[in-house]
Amino acid sequence: MKTSLSSKDILSLQDISASEISSILSLASKLKKDLRKKDFSKLLTGKILGMIFQKPSTRTRVSFESAMIQMGGSAISLNSSDIQLSRGESVDDTARTLSLYLNCLMARVYDHSDIEKLAINSSIPVINGLSNLFHPCQILADLLTIKEHKKNFKNLNLAWIGDGNNVCNDLLLGCSKTGINIKVACPKGYEPPSWIIKIAKDSCINSNCNVDILNDPIKAVLDADVVVTDTFMSIGMEQEKIKREQIFLPKYQVNSDLMKFADKDVIFMHCLPAKRGQEVTSDVIDGTSSVVWDEAENRLHVQKAILYMLMKKK
Amino acid sequence: MKTSLSSKDILSLQDISASEISSILSLASKLKKDLRKKDFSKLLTGKILGMIFQKPSTRTRVSFESAMIQMGGSAISLNSSDIQLSRGESVDDTARTLSLYLNCLMARVYDHSDIEKLAINSSIPVINGLSNLFHPCQILADLLTIKEHKKNFKNLNLAWIGDGNNVCNDLLLGCSKTGINIKVACPKGYEPPSWIIKIAKDSCINSNCNVDILNDPIKAVLDADVVVTDTFMSIGMEQEKIKREQIFLPKYQVNSDLMKFADKDVIFMHCLPAKRGQEVTSDVIDGTSSVVWDEAENRLHVQKAILYMLMKKK
Amino acid sequence: MKTSLSSKDILSLQDISASEISSILSLASKLKKDLRKKDFSKLLTGKILGMIFQKPSTRTRVSFESAMIQMGGSAISLNSSDIQLSRGESVDDTARTLSLYLNCLMARVYDHSDIEKLAINSSIPVINGLSNLFHPCQILADLLTIKEHKKNFKNLNLAWIGDGNNVCNDLLLGCSKTGINIKVACPKGYEPPSWIIKIAKDSCINSNCNVDILNDPIKAVLDADVVVTDTFMSIGMEQEKIKREQIFLPKYQVNSDLMKFADKDVIFMHCLPAKRGQEVTSDVIDGTSSVVWDEAENRLHVQKAILYMLMKKK
Repeated sequence: MKTSLSSKDILSLQDISASEISSILSLASKLKKDLRKKDFSKLLTGKILGMIFQKPSTRTRVSFESAMIQMGGSAISLNSSDIQLSRGESVDDTARTLSLYLNCLMARVYDHSDIEKLAINSSIPVINGLSNLFHPCQILADLLTIKEHKKNFKNLNLAWIGDGNNVCNDLLLGCSKTGINIKVACPKGYEPPSWIIKIAKDSCINSNCNVDILNDPIKAVLDADVVVTDTFMSIGMEQEKIKREQIFLPKYQVNSDLMKFADKDVIFMHCLPAKRGQEVTSDVIDGTSSVVWDEAENRLHVQKAILYMLMKKK
Repeated sequence: MKTSLSSKDILSLQDISASEISSILSLASKLKKDLRKKDFSKLLTGKILGMIFQKPSTRTRVSFESAMIQMGGSAISLNSSDIQLSRGESVDDTARTLSLYLNCLMARVYDHSDIEKLAINSSIPVINGLSNLFHPCQILADLLTIKEHKKNFKNLNLAWIGDGNNVCNDLLLGCSKTGINIKVACPKGYEPPSWIIKIAKDSCINSNCNVDILNDPIKAVLDADVVVTDTFMSIGMEQEKIKREQIFLPKYQVNSDLMKFADKDVIFMHCLPAKRGQEVTSDVIDGTSSVVWDEAENRLHVQKAILYMLMKKK
Repeated sequence: MKTSLSSKDILSLQDISASEISSILSLASKLKKDLRKKDFSKLLTGKILGMIFQKPSTRTRVSFESAMIQMGGSAISLNSSDIQLSRGESVDDTARTLSLYLNCLMARVYDHSDIEKLAINSSIPVINGLSNLFHPCQILADLLTIKEHKKNFKNLNLAWIGDGNNVCNDLLLGCSKTGINIKVACPKGYEPPSWIIKIAKDSCINSNCNVDILNDPIKAVLDADVVVTDTFMSIGMEQEKIKREQIFLPKYQVNSDLMKFADKDVIFMHCLPAKRGQEVTSDVIDGTSSVVWDEAENRLHVQKAILYMLMKKK
């Protein structure tokens, strides 16, 4: 099993090849399977991950910190308000400084250009823990969850319903790299950026799958093996609440009426936090086809894999 | 020595039997005595405690985190503002998520129903680090302090002066389980809830002691071996300051005039933080009968005992 | 090599003798040199550093926490808002409480009297991580950086340009103890306190060097081996911005015109964060004579040395 990555940083799934995705998922499965049987506490002994949060976080914060601890390392959590970034120290200088004390950096930022600046100015690996454009760790967890439930990616149909957001962007890249057919159904004007769609379509040529951007949830969900959605009210969109509810509801809600069009063994995924009654109904997210808790748990395991692969030799 | 507990969670002393209290105190004493001589750093190697704080904390935060570290584990501190609870993610979903990454959860909450929801929805043990109703870790530290200074609980008289608050509630349960006679003196209308008094009185039948709820501090303190008080201005009560000062002062202040009615070997306890000149005067809390620093230190030791008992087999 | 200190606490360089500075720098060099070759993770196993922050911090926070982790210990970070200090618990009680759970305390405070109160009331060592009066860890890092680049301190000329602030104060003490000639150039009214100048001048008698307080940057920089500056807009001075810019600019800016008066092998130092275009220009701080990143890295190494020396026997 290959356990190194060609890119210093993971800012989006653009930085990881199809075969590297496969290696990450294999290592994550192994770490997950043996968590209680074997002692992995020597894998990253003494290594320190810095975590910068411009936005609140539950899953990202705790899963990254636990991942480091379980492998014998440590994590230092830095809110923007704790550090000099809040006083106007540049991202560039912050990155250079933190590189002197840490072995790896993870950041949750509003503007993707911030994580790009961190990566350029850091001598240590930088992981995107969510930006306005991408959310690679979530998609790796999603792919592991799909692999666990569907065995392999070949001929699978995945439907994304709702906002063409950061999670959708990396899902397009992840599906097109791994050969999963992806149908995205968004309201007009809320589609993913065209340059990302282009990258995904180009990538499909190698992996022999299809990318379709639609405005019809039923068409997207028809015969789907996997249905995915996310809140259409991300952090910072509070002032658009009424407008967005009018645009997304009821058409782009994942409820049991919509799920009837999917394959009988469909699984439902959501990166959480969920707003029940908005983008998804309780009977779906809390129902038998939902695998959202596997998905949340898999954040831990895929992140352990990438942390190990990024830091082990350094 | 028994080192397991019958309840998954510790939300109040209701969850711990008299014999379990005894086991916790024995283990805590042992851990305290051998802290500098023996290496306990293998007791909880690799275990991770999550700590949620809805209110500020000094003793709870640092004593829990140090407890984990001294036993080879780690703690992750989560302010409400750090996590998605602040964005409206439900307590239920937060509990389920955190159970995936952690081995135990401690929370300091305003509303006791929040810690109950965390416990119900967590697959991992949940410890109440202070709610509006209970403060079990403080009372365990108090009982250890009493045991150290008075050797045993039989025939001891304890007086609680002031507000019938969360600390008083669990103290009622703790005394009635361990056989300490407790007299509570509160202003009318500030007595502990009647359902808690009832539980305590029922519990006295087995342990052969008395519970008395009074409105007269002198009667409560008469021949007391232990006098306990707490601020009558808890977090969130700032707008009631003038009203509460009129009700509690001067009658319910623990000062040297009041302490004269107690036994000559009386000890004074306070869970801190203290407001000198309000609920207690400096000559008492900083005087020779005060054991408040033993009490604060014992938070560390009893918490190590319960963390070990809750997590060791998992 | 001597590895203990005569003072319990490090509140300023007043607490450290010339020979102790020499021991700290030697140990720091050794720890730095062997960081990747040897395993120092047993030096402070199980030891816990508490860190209190009244002000935001990047370098201090992360370098202290990484220092503890690399030596096998742990650090607990406490913002003022996290702890009961924010509810009016006295610094004295906070210090006594934290002494019960921790092995060492570091604090970044506004008012130097706060760190003095912490030290007096703590039974554990207290380190000043920046106060309005002193910044000893920064100066130890500066001295290590000077030693690395200039080999020894004898006959060196150092120029401080700008505000006679906390960093300048400890630099006066550090230079006068180690025998570095120091010329400080400040606007009138912004000189260091006269009592600190007096201590430095007295100290020079033993170490055979000179302390000069000037108002002329060119005279200070003439033939300087080391030029140092800092922001003249510290945290909390935002309302004085326009006034301070008029006073300090352009005369007290370190730019290439000023640097021409220095020795040809001059090094430039700045404790960061820097405001390029204010106290220093980009061509200087990002130029070939700048050693600011060595200086930032050396925070880690000198702090490891003092943490070890303060805690090892306890």
